[in-house]
This record gives sequence, structure tokens and C-alpha cells, in this order.
Amino acid sequence: MQLLDGKATSEQIKKELMLAVQNRKKEGKKIPHLAAILVGNDGGSLTYVNAKVKACELIGFESTLIRYDETVPEEILLAKVQSLNEDKSVDGFIVQLPLPKHIDELKITQAIDPRKDVDGFHPVNLGNMMLNIPGFLPATPAGIMELLKRNNIETEGKKCVIIGRSNIVGMPLSVMLSKNTNPGNCTVTLAHSKTKNLKAICQTADIIIAAIGQPGFVKEEMVKEGAVIIDVGTTRVLDANNPKGWKLCGDVDFEKVAPKCSFITPVPGGVGPMTIASLMINTLRAMELKGK
Amino acid sequence: MQLLDGKATSEQIKKELMLAVQNRKKEGKKIPHLAAILVGNDGGSLTYVNAKVKACELIGFESTLIRYDETVPEEILLAKVQSLNEDKSVDGFIVQLPLPKHIDELKITQAIDPRKDVDGFHPVNLGNMMLNIPGFLPATPAGIMELLKRNNIETEGKKCVIIGRSNIVGMPLSVMLSKNTNPGNCTVTLAHSKTKNLKAICQTADIIIAAIGQPGFVKEEMVKEGAVIIDVGTTRVLDANNPKGWKLCGDVDFEKVAPKCSFITPVPGGVGPMTIASLMINTLRAMELKGK
Repeated sequence: MQLLDGKATSEQIKKELMLAVQNRKKEGKKIPHLAAILVGNDGGSLTYVNAKVKACELIGFESTLIRYDETVPEEILLAKVQSLNEDKSVDGFIVQLPLPKHIDELKITQAIDPRKDVDGFHPVNLGNMMLNIPGFLPATPAGIMELLKRNNIETEGKKCVIIGRSNIVGMPLSVMLSKNTNPGNCTVTLAHSKTKNLKAICQTADIIIAAIGQPGFVKEEMVKEGAVIIDVGTTRVLDANNPKGWKLCGDVDFEKVAPKCSFITPVPGGVGPMTIASLMINTLRAMELKGK
Repeated sequence: MQLLDGKATSEQIKKELMLAVQNRKKEGKKIPHLAAILVGNDGGSLTYVNAKVKACELIGFESTLIRYDETVPEEILLAKVQSLNEDKSVDGFIVQLPLPKHIDELKITQAIDPRKDVDGFHPVNLGNMMLNIPGFLPATPAGIMELLKRNNIETEGKKCVIIGRSNIVGMPLSVMLSKNTNPGNCTVTLAHSKTKNLKAICQTADIIIAAIGQPGFVKEEMVKEGAVIIDVGTTRVLDANNPKGWKLCGDVDFEKVAPKCSFITPVPGGVGPMTIASLMINTLRAMELKGK
């Protein structure tokens, strides 16, 4: 069994981006600027956004964090999105999800200028992804593709089961892995809460990608000897032994599943850092798509 | 075995649309107007476009057929698309595919105003489809969904294998059938030219959708007893016994496969008429989305 080390792979990507920034500086070009909007005080969201800002600082991107109280009215948020759309100093921005219930996430996502939508959640970017038109790929699926690519995981002709059909992970990833690309050319089965006999379906999979947010959902008996396992889950579970009082849990029963795998991502240190790396790649790409 | 009669189902839809047009007339509302651009003299394309124009006439839609020689320069076609985008009398229009090789199909597709893109090929409409945002669903997949729905084919929890990952059929249909809708909630596997052991994969399928354009590709031994078979193929095959000199062939070896099925679409008379019905539904919908 070999760890698919998202942390190490993302460090490599960040180094490459750092170099790209230095070269841009030398050439007198604009330094990429990422803005992030965070609403409320959810611990997970705060951690993610902070990690994104930190990655920007490390690479040498400019970054701006904009915070709102969780009671912020939708129209204030929409107005902020509009002003970031128009702000020429900002090349890309994200609105950290989830948002409080009184705010329509889809409305916010759609309000973002697709040319600045570095999370790749806007319908225009999803449509472009389907048709291979240049744009922004959704950050987590793109991070998984990059992880597979940089670790030379063979995907062509492989049976891949994706568990979870979310708009931001499972659904777009099923499209990306089905395409005639490398990584890609998988025979993808997209499983979800209505899927029957999931165990039998998983047992034949060469690659399993778990993205449902249920700690330890993928068990030993679901996994074929030698399978590749990508764990997208990051649920906070109470843990008295941890100074924080909790630990991050993936969707895979790592202890028991890992010995059967050829490759497996840890949680934390697997898909999480790759999502951030993707976001950074997209932010640089925002400049390039503009031809700047 | 029961035929999934796309012709009969589409006749029913056309009757409903005819009534809707009559009601619009009574209310003094605008009559939907579909325009179609046809380039060249390909027999198949000509047949399809004529069928679309004929459906408009039957229902009571206005229709306009615009024809170009197959040598038409791309910029002339783009200019026509632009003028149809701006033409307030036209509610929806299509450019019949395939186009001659010197014309970039994707460029043409992207030039169409998404609000008039009644074929549902524009990236904005594909992205909207992924996110359940109101728009135009791609005509053939939407026709298949409608056929399943109106014939009460159970899909929830069913294993569905789609053969063929095209941008206009297989790929979007895999997304639509995976969604938490009815029809939908299938466990979809998207198969393609790089898929290994396709026979074994198909043998476990409750629903097989063949969309590759290879006559007779789906054989008896690939199909489980009681499966539902949707045949999207329409290849013209030489046939001396036919006064036209050819006949339409589906992707399924109908004679041998049909006896094993619970439901199967014929070719012709299955998916083809449903694609046209979808286009008509989308054209009416173009008015409704405008609030007219």
C-alpha cells in the first residue's frame, strides 16, 4: 500500500506557482489576487479559508479576506459579489460554502462573474467543463485529477465508482473522469443514496472515490484487493484525546481498508490540500485566461 | 416484451402542444417561432430538419428553414446566428449538426444566445442542467427522459448503462439520469470506446441506453432478461429491398434482443420522434422562460 500524499503533491504545486509568481514579477506582470468571502464563524469554514489565505501568502499571491456576520442579508452579499466582479485588482474570488440558510447559495454562485469564479461552481464553468472549453474546473475534482496525474495512477479503461453525486464533487468528477483525457477514460459509475447493492458495485471497482461526508462509510469488505481509494470526506468527529477536542474523519475506514489498497489518500493530508492547490492553479489561470 | 413507442408518445406530446398553441392564440399571445439552419445536402440532416419543420406546422408553431450550400464560410453562418439571436420574431433556433469540416461546431454552438438554444447544446444550458437551473435540456436526452416518464418506466435505484459519451447524448444523459428526480435516481455507468468488459457490465444492467452509432452493436448475450433498452442509434445502411435504397439501423440487434426485454424502443419510431418532440417542448418553453 502506498499513500497518495496530497500534502506532498500540493507542496510541489505551490513551489511551481511560487516560481511562476517570481517570473511574473521579473516580467513586470500583475501578481494574481484572490479574494475570499467568509460568512459566519463555522470552525471548518474558517479553517479552510485560513488555509487558502496562507497558501496565497506562501506562493506570493495577493489575498483579501472579507468576513460577514452570519446574519448578513443576502442583498449585502450579492452587492459585495458585484463589487468584486467589477474590482480590477481582484483576479479571482470565492464565497466559502456552506452559507447560512437564509442565503440562496445558487443565487450567489450564479452572481459571480464566471471569469473570476476560481472555485469553478458557476454553471458557465460547469458547461465549459462538459464541452472541453477553457474555463475553471471545479476545485476539488480538479485537485483529484491532478493528484492522480502527478502520482502516475493509471485510469484508462479502469472501473471507477464515485460515491456521492454532489454538484461540487461527485457529479462533475464523474464527467471529468469519463472524458477522453489523461487522467480520464475511466468507466465511471456514479453511486448515491438511492443506489442498490453498493457493496457489490464497489467490489468490482479499480478506483473508489468516496464523497458523501459519512465517516468510515467505505468498509474493508467493499474494496477489491489492489484498488485505488480517494477519500474526499472531511467530517469533524469529537475526540477527547485531541487537544482541539475533535479530529477530521474521512469517508473511508482507513485502518482496515488501507492494507488492501494499492494507493489510498489519508485524511487529513489527501484531497484537502489538493483542493487548495487547485484553487491556486485556477487563480493563476484567471490571469492567463485574461491574457495578462 | 413491450415496445416503447416513441412515435405514439410524441404524437401525444404534439397534441398537447397543439392545444397550448390554440390557447395562446385565444389569449392573444405570440405563437412560438422556431428557425432551423441547414448547411449542405446530407440526406439524414435534410430528413431531420424536414421532420422538425413538419412538426412545427402540425402543432401550429411558426417555422423558418434557412439553407446554405455546404461551402458556406464560417463567418456567414456566424453572422446568421447573430441575426437570429437579435430577431425578436424568432423564439428559438437550431443549427442542424453535423456541419462541414471547415466550420467549428463548438464555435457555432457557443454563438447561439442560450435563451434561444432550443437544442440545449450551449455550455450555459449544460451547466444549468447540472445545477437544476431552469434552461433548455439537450433535446435527445430530454426526449428519452420524457419517453421513460410517460411510459411509467421505473428508474429509481436501477442500474443503467449508457454506451457512448457524446456531448449531445451520452454525457448529459448520464447526469440527468443520476439526479434525484423522476425519472432519475439511476445508478448510471457511462461506457465508451475505452471501457473494458462491456459485455459483463451490460449483463447486470436494468436499463441499457445505446448511443454510439454502430448498427447492431448491442447483442443478445449482453442483455439481462427483463431489461429496458433504449436505442439512440440511427445509421443509414444500404438495403436493396427498400425503395429508398437504405434503411435506418439502430445500435441494438433488435430481432434477437427484443424477446429478452421488458421494454425496447424501435428504430425508427423510438428516440427519433421523441427528440423532435423535445425540441417542440423547448420552443414553447422559450416563450415561457421569457415570461411571454
